[in-house]
Amino acid sequence: MSGSGFAATPRPPYWVVVFTSQRTPDDDAGYAAAAARMVELTRQSPGFLGIESVRGADGLGITVCYWDSEEAIAGWRAHVEHAEARAQGKARWYAHYELRVAKVERAYGGPHA
Amino acid sequence: MSGSGFAATPRPPYWVVVFTSQRTPDDDAGYAAAAARMVELTRQSPGFLGIESVRGADGLGITVCYWDSEEAIAGWRAHVEHAEARAQGKARWYAHYELRVAKVERAYGGPHA
Repeated sequence: MSGSGFAATPRPPYWVVVFTSQRTPDDDAGYAAAAARMVELTRQSPGFLGIESVRGADGLGITVCYWDSEEAIAGWRAHVEHAEARAQGKARWYAHYELRVAKVERAYGGPHA
Repeated sequence: MSGSGFAATPRPPYWVVVFTSQRTPDDDAGYAAAAARMVELTRQSPGFLGIESVRGADGLGITVCYWDSEEAIAGWRAHVEHAEARAQGKARWYAHYELRVAKVERAYGGPHA
């Protein structure tokens, strides 16, 4: 089985962006609206493969986004609305974040019967 | 700044294991004890660089663990207690999981003043 929170990715290799972030206590409504819009745009971006995202009660979040190439990541990064959202994120929504770009070499899931 | 939920990783390249999982509703106490023990053992494992972990109220979790080499990942995988915990995880704790091993090529953090 695969729950709705899992990305259905192809056989490796492909790329992953790991975005770990700590929310400020500020502007929950503005953040939620922008986050939903960014997920919508991400899904429409060429080369998008899937997304998995969790935020805990303490405001720490991890979003993992999968892409078919480095060019796809660069294309999403260049999107005008994404750039505007990043600026807002730095100014208001995130106390801190770390972003890592990595090439997926192996993948497997479970449990299996 | 870097909150306590962030891993302090070196300059790339290094390796990342992304583990996305959906908890069953079962055995919260047993799972919590095992998870804490696994984090403790992971931190002692050779080549460990850092860990970031979040679980949401719906039971979906993402744990991201950083390693200095593929050999370090293989070493942790071979740990006897880790193997036992994986068996329990498949049998009781996880409705589903996906594990991906990737090589980190680029990384940056923010916001910067």
